Amino acid sequence: MREQVILFFKQFVNLEEKDILLIEELTTVKHFSKNEFILIQGKVCDFVAFIHKGAFRGFYSVDGQEYSKQFFLEGEFCTDYASFLTEKKSLTYLQATEDSTVIFFEKKAVNTMYKAIPGFVHFGKLLAESLYIKVCDITASFILNTPEERYTNLIKERPKVIQSIPQYMIASYLGITPEALSRIRKRLGKT
Amino acid sequence: MREQVILFFKQFVNLEEKDILLIEELTTVKHFSKNEFILIQGKVCDFVAFIHKGAFRGFYSVDGQEYSKQFFLEGEFCTDYASFLTEKKSLTYLQATEDSTVIFFEKKAVNTMYKAIPGFVHFGKLLAESLYIKVCDITASFILNTPEERYTNLIKERPKVIQSIPQYMIASYLGITPEALSRIRKRLGKT
Repeated sequence: MREQVILFFKQFVNLEEKDILLIEELTTVKHFSKNEFILIQGKVCDFVAFIHKGAFRGFYSVDGQEYSKQFFLEGEFCTDYASFLTEKKSLTYLQATEDSTVIFFEKKAVNTMYKAIPGFVHFGKLLAESLYIKVCDITASFILNTPEERYTNLIKERPKVIQSIPQYMIASYLGITPEALSRIRKRLGKT
Repeated sequence: MREQVILFFKQFVNLEEKDILLIEELTTVKHFSKNEFILIQGKVCDFVAFIHKGAFRGFYSVDGQEYSKQFFLEGEFCTDYASFLTEKKSLTYLQATEDSTVIFFEKKAVNTMYKAIPGFVHFGKLLAESLYIKVCDITASFILNTPEERYTNLIKERPKVIQSIPQYMIASYLGITPEALSRIRKRLGKT
């Protein structure tokens, strides 16, 4: 079950056999049913969860209105990484959008890995950098691009989101109504 | 001139005398006049600039309209770090808001420091993490807070921005008109 996450790490860090055994020891496999929450707003996020199978959505909730913030797909880490790092209460919910299986790393396991695995700090650096680049891209696109351009970019860069995530969640992520997304999809010949 | 940035690094990394000499060798001191650009949109950002004195503003420009993205003050790094990391063209302008002096690190200097200084990768990790946390906070505040709350948080968390940066730039950063900011300041008894 953990081969996928080991392969993921190996792209960035040289792992020896003892490191792999340590990772296997430190992690647990968890299952989440569709719509189940892996994190709720107001709790500190004390984990990163590598998605073996399934998908999750991160969203804000304000006065009963949901604002999709982020989608997490297979082979990605699902977490509120800002809350994980700062140990402040999370501002978001993380919810499975389908039945999902994750490799679950508690914060203390991650800290152990930083201490025990040479070069793992380099992985931590790359992870934070890639998350930073992603959130900057999203923020910029809200100012520099039209909703149609944001949708086209999403199709190009994360086609699996279009396949895996319900339309109304994607609309919320793009900052538009489901009706506006329908019109964009019609114009692009997607329906 | 470089004592300030050396002290900054020393909070996170153990620097030996030879590391300090290397940093002094690899960096240059640069001056920017008020309104001068340290980076323009469309260029790759190949530097990080530690602000010894002065302040900078990062902004997007769309159809002649400016959208303030970020302020950089004394003792902080001014850079488009996403462009620096990806080597893609910058989406923003970085402009001095007053006469400023920086310690200028070219990308190749930073790469040399990563290779030569043990533990510097740990600093790189912390830097990316802190930038990530900051941009997440800003993004969340646009959804979770009113403009008045965003302004109050700015006063609390970055009081120097209020003192150093012109009102109309702060208004643009908060996503409101200068008139709306004036009304908020009146309500808070700031004028």
